Amino acid sequence: MPILDRQDTGPIARLTLNAPEKLNALSDAMLAALQDQFDQLAGDHNIRVVTIAGAGKAFCAGHDLKEMTAGRQSPDGGRAYFADLFNRCSSVMRAIRTLPQPVIAAPHGIATAAGCQLVASCDMAVAAHGTRFGVNGVNIGLFCSTPMVALSRNIPRKQAFEMLTTGEFIDTTRAAELGLINRAVALEDLDTATLALAETVASKLASAVRIGKRAFYDQIEMGHDAAYAHTGAVMVENMLDHDTAEGITAFIEKRAPDWDQ
Amino acid sequence: MPILDRQDTGPIARLTLNAPEKLNALSDAMLAALQDQFDQLAGDHNIRVVTIAGAGKAFCAGHDLKEMTAGRQSPDGGRAYFADLFNRCSSVMRAIRTLPQPVIAAPHGIATAAGCQLVASCDMAVAAHGTRFGVNGVNIGLFCSTPMVALSRNIPRKQAFEMLTTGEFIDTTRAAELGLINRAVALEDLDTATLALAETVASKLASAVRIGKRAFYDQIEMGHDAAYAHTGAVMVENMLDHDTAEGITAFIEKRAPDWDQ
Amino acid sequence: MPILDRQDTGPIARLTLNAPEKLNALSDAMLAALQDQFDQLAGDHNIRVVTIAGAGKAFCAGHDLKEMTAGRQSPDGGRAYFADLFNRCSSVMRAIRTLPQPVIAAPHGIATAAGCQLVASCDMAVAAHGTRFGVNGVNIGLFCSTPMVALSRNIPRKQAFEMLTTGEFIDTTRAAELGLINRAVALEDLDTATLALAETVASKLASAVRIGKRAFYDQIEMGHDAAYAHTGAVMVENMLDHDTAEGITAFIEKRAPDWDQ
Repeated sequence: MPILDRQDTGPIARLTLNAPEKLNALSDAMLAALQDQFDQLAGDHNIRVVTIAGAGKAFCAGHDLKEMTAGRQSPDGGRAYFADLFNRCSSVMRAIRTLPQPVIAAPHGIATAAGCQLVASCDMAVAAHGTRFGVNGVNIGLFCSTPMVALSRNIPRKQAFEMLTTGEFIDTTRAAELGLINRAVALEDLDTATLALAETVASKLASAVRIGKRAFYDQIEMGHDAAYAHTGAVMVENMLDHDTAEGITAFIEKRAPDWDQ
Repeated sequence: MPILDRQDTGPIARLTLNAPEKLNALSDAMLAALQDQFDQLAGDHNIRVVTIAGAGKAFCAGHDLKEMTAGRQSPDGGRAYFADLFNRCSSVMRAIRTLPQPVIAAPHGIATAAGCQLVASCDMAVAAHGTRFGVNGVNIGLFCSTPMVALSRNIPRKQAFEMLTTGEFIDTTRAAELGLINRAVALEDLDTATLALAETVASKLASAVRIGKRAFYDQIEMGHDAAYAHTGAVMVENMLDHDTAEGITAFIEKRAPDWDQ
Repeated sequence: MPILDRQDTGPIARLTLNAPEKLNALSDAMLAALQDQFDQLAGDHNIRVVTIAGAGKAFCAGHDLKEMTAGRQSPDGGRAYFADLFNRCSSVMRAIRTLPQPVIAAPHGIATAAGCQLVASCDMAVAAHGTRFGVNGVNIGLFCSTPMVALSRNIPRKQAFEMLTTGEFIDTTRAAELGLINRAVALEDLDTATLALAETVASKLASAVRIGKRAFYDQIEMGHDAAYAHTGAVMVENMLDHDTAEGITAFIEKRAPDWDQ
């Protein structure tokens, strides 16, 4: 199996991080495989929802520390390599947000550092009971500065600050309370529950979900009035989609819509 | 009774959406009535708090889909009508925020799509147990893009995203946990509880509440330092109000304030 | 004992507001003492974490109303004094955020108005059970406009708005749910629990915590892409710290790091 496995089930692409011996670390190879898949998925009109899970004992334990340490051997002490590495990693995280399809993380075991960031970067997350989440780079002297971009946009400030400066883990109950995940299920139900959520979203009009996801992240960074101006224009375009016209007519006529998509 | 009923009880204006046969849909007529009332209320110094409830089985089920569908008949397929409609709707939502008086939503039954937006747009909300909240336009192919402006400024991201892309409802317990409402009470207590909250706020110095509400939404979109500069200036003006001087003196003298307002 | 007591325990500076007869009001003298301590702490490389507690029955009851009232005697009715006062107060609150060391509030009894702001302004907070939090200036006609800058960046909007316009208190259970504090403990355990959290943070690599805290507040006000560009650069610098190199190597070699700091 490749380092990043992809299995399509109808309109749902299921990605599985597959380097269990490294706890699915975001190595150079893993980051390249993720970026490649996201690039392919961005143009794949057959896929409506993407899920991300991890093979083995853990979802993802963050960066590959041995690889990072090897990067120090260059004459600049690794400066250029690290700059490129964090740029590639951030590019992967940003690709999740700009991907037309909603992305659901399905963590189990542990999701730490950049692995916790991966959960935070997805649009939604369903976790297995027992999963532990942490941004624990501070324990080895490397503050999780890029992970906190995603984390601090998911959970309240004091709680994010505590996780970042203590390196302590939170469990799924706490992660759900804080907003880091949507919910937790038993490990044996993780695939089923994730797929069920994916199927629910995939059953919607794909064009509506696509423009909605984009507008969600666009408007969230705007001031209030600008956000209304922007989303108002988005809704006009949505209304002019003939499938949307059919959806509304079908609703009024109390029948199922007959969508082209 | 008119499509939007208004009953004043002392300094409290109680608006009731009154088109129960349409689940109080935000039709052209309803939007016009709301805008008209907010315009009047903005200059009404006798009113200190506004509440919004719905007549019949539901608080508000969003836009009037039959009216929207009729709008498609024009030569441009409805483009100009839809642009105007979303502009009028957003104007009503923004009017709640710019209204000098705090506005309390009192939903019951269902609050969906633009009806959920109406709840999210109010400064506070007290709901009846059993109320179901949803931004379920996605079910008919019309993503709730304008409602999400208000929703995503009330509740955490992943939870907002799930509501928007699954179209699923949340109950009052969940709505309170997420921050969409302040609390829920039994349906038979909804009027009393809403009025009690309104009376509490109405008992405060009106000028202080007025400048506080405006400053709340102004500062929340500013950077940290700009927010402090702005609110510092606001507090100086507040301190120079002779009623505030009386309020502070009365507190020091352990007596009730004798306010002119 | 001075108006602001400081006791250092190893790398932890414990500040105690010490004007119990005034419920530790943020008087001119108290604000000056806080600013002075923060200025000193900013350059004190021996101190890694700061805690703030209150002597007597309460943590802090906000501004000194008698002093503010006396300020009205000047020819301008106090305008210049109030402008200066709120500027000095905001400067103290902003100093907490810009201080290189994490700051933990340890409130008990009551934390009201600017006292509640002080809790909200700290990076983390551990409270004693029974503490009551409020931004109750509205009760005397003085809306808590500067406190809401910190409060509205800690807790959701509708809940902040309710506290600000009703003046009502929340207890520690609610404060923890909303995000205003990290947790509550029994009053007799407050010092121990606060110190334990401080020691946990103080045990981390100081340089990593320092750059992490600064980056936390810098990135939180940026757009998503700018935040990633900024924190990516921060992580490169962090990686080039020789103590971080040692931390990572020690982790790989499954031993404790031998840090210079």
